[in-house]
Amino acid sequence: MQNLLSGIKPTLLMGPGPSCVPDAVYKALAMPTLGHLDPYFIRIMDEIKEQLKTVMSTKNHLTMPMSGTGSAGMETCFVNLLEPKDKVLILINGVFGKRMQDLASRLGAEVDALEFEWGTPVLLDKVEEALKKNNYKVVAVVHAETSTGVCNPVKEIGELVAKSGALFLVDAVTSLGGMPVLTDEWKIDAIYSGTQKCLSCPPGLSPVSFSARAVETLKNRKTKVPNWYLDLTMIINYWEGQNRSYHHTAPINMLYALDAALSEILNEGLPTVYERHKKAHNELVTKLDALGLEMLVTPEARLPMLNAVKIPKKIIDAKSEANIRKRLLDEYNIEIGAGLGPLAGQIWRIGLMGHTARTENINTLCNALKTVLS
Amino acid sequence: MQNLLSGIKPTLLMGPGPSCVPDAVYKALAMPTLGHLDPYFIRIMDEIKEQLKTVMSTKNHLTMPMSGTGSAGMETCFVNLLEPKDKVLILINGVFGKRMQDLASRLGAEVDALEFEWGTPVLLDKVEEALKKNNYKVVAVVHAETSTGVCNPVKEIGELVAKSGALFLVDAVTSLGGMPVLTDEWKIDAIYSGTQKCLSCPPGLSPVSFSARAVETLKNRKTKVPNWYLDLTMIINYWEGQNRSYHHTAPINMLYALDAALSEILNEGLPTVYERHKKAHNELVTKLDALGLEMLVTPEARLPMLNAVKIPKKIIDAKSEANIRKRLLDEYNIEIGAGLGPLAGQIWRIGLMGHTARTENINTLCNALKTVLS
Repeated sequence: MQNLLSGIKPTLLMGPGPSCVPDAVYKALAMPTLGHLDPYFIRIMDEIKEQLKTVMSTKNHLTMPMSGTGSAGMETCFVNLLEPKDKVLILINGVFGKRMQDLASRLGAEVDALEFEWGTPVLLDKVEEALKKNNYKVVAVVHAETSTGVCNPVKEIGELVAKSGALFLVDAVTSLGGMPVLTDEWKIDAIYSGTQKCLSCPPGLSPVSFSARAVETLKNRKTKVPNWYLDLTMIINYWEGQNRSYHHTAPINMLYALDAALSEILNEGLPTVYERHKKAHNELVTKLDALGLEMLVTPEARLPMLNAVKIPKKIIDAKSEANIRKRLLDEYNIEIGAGLGPLAGQIWRIGLMGHTARTENINTLCNALKTVLS
Repeated sequence: MQNLLSGIKPTLLMGPGPSCVPDAVYKALAMPTLGHLDPYFIRIMDEIKEQLKTVMSTKNHLTMPMSGTGSAGMETCFVNLLEPKDKVLILINGVFGKRMQDLASRLGAEVDALEFEWGTPVLLDKVEEALKKNNYKVVAVVHAETSTGVCNPVKEIGELVAKSGALFLVDAVTSLGGMPVLTDEWKIDAIYSGTQKCLSCPPGLSPVSFSARAVETLKNRKTKVPNWYLDLTMIINYWEGQNRSYHHTAPINMLYALDAALSEILNEGLPTVYERHKKAHNELVTKLDALGLEMLVTPEARLPMLNAVKIPKKIIDAKSEANIRKRLLDEYNIEIGAGLGPLAGQIWRIGLMGHTARTENINTLCNALKTVLS
């Protein structure tokens, strides 16, 4: 039997993730599989944890990748911290805030949602007001809203949440590795990310970090974590301590890939990586402007790695919007993203994530766009 | 920064999984990442589903890999089928039956456990008796108990469960791809497996299949699935139909690897693969016998791919038992498994799973064992 794999064409991934993967990461993926309790593999796990701590700017002991994609990281944070009837406040301005609301509701928590217009950031005075009205166990927000390209003011929200005494839960799926994510400095108690965005590793893992306070909350639970696969009270015994005990069989080769991806970033240096993202973003905006394309988000609130571009009126109807993306993929092997939810058909999402964030990619995309839009 | 990956040595994986990975699968892992909604990737997803159906001997429409390791597959089956207060019967004769009990209990189900001695199979008359006493929504059993090397009589249990009207949930993590797993013929309603055993793919995915009755049960739930990441009511919209909609970003490269691994098996042919496992098992037992090593399980109940070997009395104390395994790993790059739970220190677990199940590997292991045991 001949399978379809031989027909895969390298694609320039300029959508909302996955992003382009460096050769060193592909090479790591294909390294020989070791046993999940092999002492050498455990050293690799420790290396991954240390590298993650650096990229996440944290000293948190409990810092490690979960064996699932970014949404499994979201579920990990909520399911380990919440018990039925706990009060949560979720700040929502896009698809991933809505996902938090849905997910937390399924756990029997009492969920208050504070919604903001999509394409605009969370407003601090509204958050302050909400925190005065109620005592929350957890306040959650998305740092980089992948569905809109908006950066939320996590540092400032963190100050307010800390004052309120609540635990602060942050989605850093799209931001981590592409801009500063200062876990400790921003007083974040639980944070998760994904590998397929600015870490430039294929999808499959979700780095997670818990502060000492979050770990304390976890240890003082009255009920068992209602999710066996993501139960951190058991998983830490595999990722920490002298005697590692088996919980589930870790995704060995994906972990190799993450180890390599983190090394790539740290070898380049975090400030250099962030600067490269910012520079790429500015180049893209300038070139899109020259093509007559406008950004959805105001400059102050824009993310460097996820660029929401308004689709010109002349091609606004869904069919030809999809056709532009199809032509980019078919004729140029370039992927860009569609809008999600209420923004479907209104925007394109152009990713400049990790390895993708380079001048040559922006030039290639904008040349192609120029042709297919004309 | 130089990371540890360059120091990985190829290891002969003869433990309870992961198993040895064929070159074609490593090659697939490192193919260029595509977007999770790329039409070509969706064709690959469809190919995976079709290949899985063949290996699982099922026509079930809902047959696909979940984005987590085997235990995520276990959780998928329970969390999608059970609602609070539902009655479940779990047949237990090893670690993975116990895991089912723990997992189902966390979901608020009423769990009855029917326990059998570890190292012996589930007894049909006890099952029949239990099914007469109570009405269960779900009856669950592990086909190949990886912790003991016992094969449970799934076909016969399936007959009893079908008569009772309950849904039949089967763990085929270790059996799938190494011996017949006749999902439809055995009247199984929900089945899950793992990639890192007889499928000879690195760990990271869990193939799952639901019968039409199980899908009906899922669709008629009164409550939302209390697990966002594993909610099949949403995930099927990504894996089925004309318009695939995003749920979470699929682990693209792991899915390539699974596609290649399934092709390897189907190219060799299922009957040939099963015969190779049986032959390897017989060779191993003969060679172990010549070394004075006995099997834990009686011949009728033995699995071909997971061989529980009694540790000779002279090295029974935990320290020197671990030392034998350490020497195999350090001096020969061979991994075998330790006992779990009550069988820790009592047995070794020698895996002949998938690509590992070959005469040359058995010879290499037994020569090494001869030296380190003498």
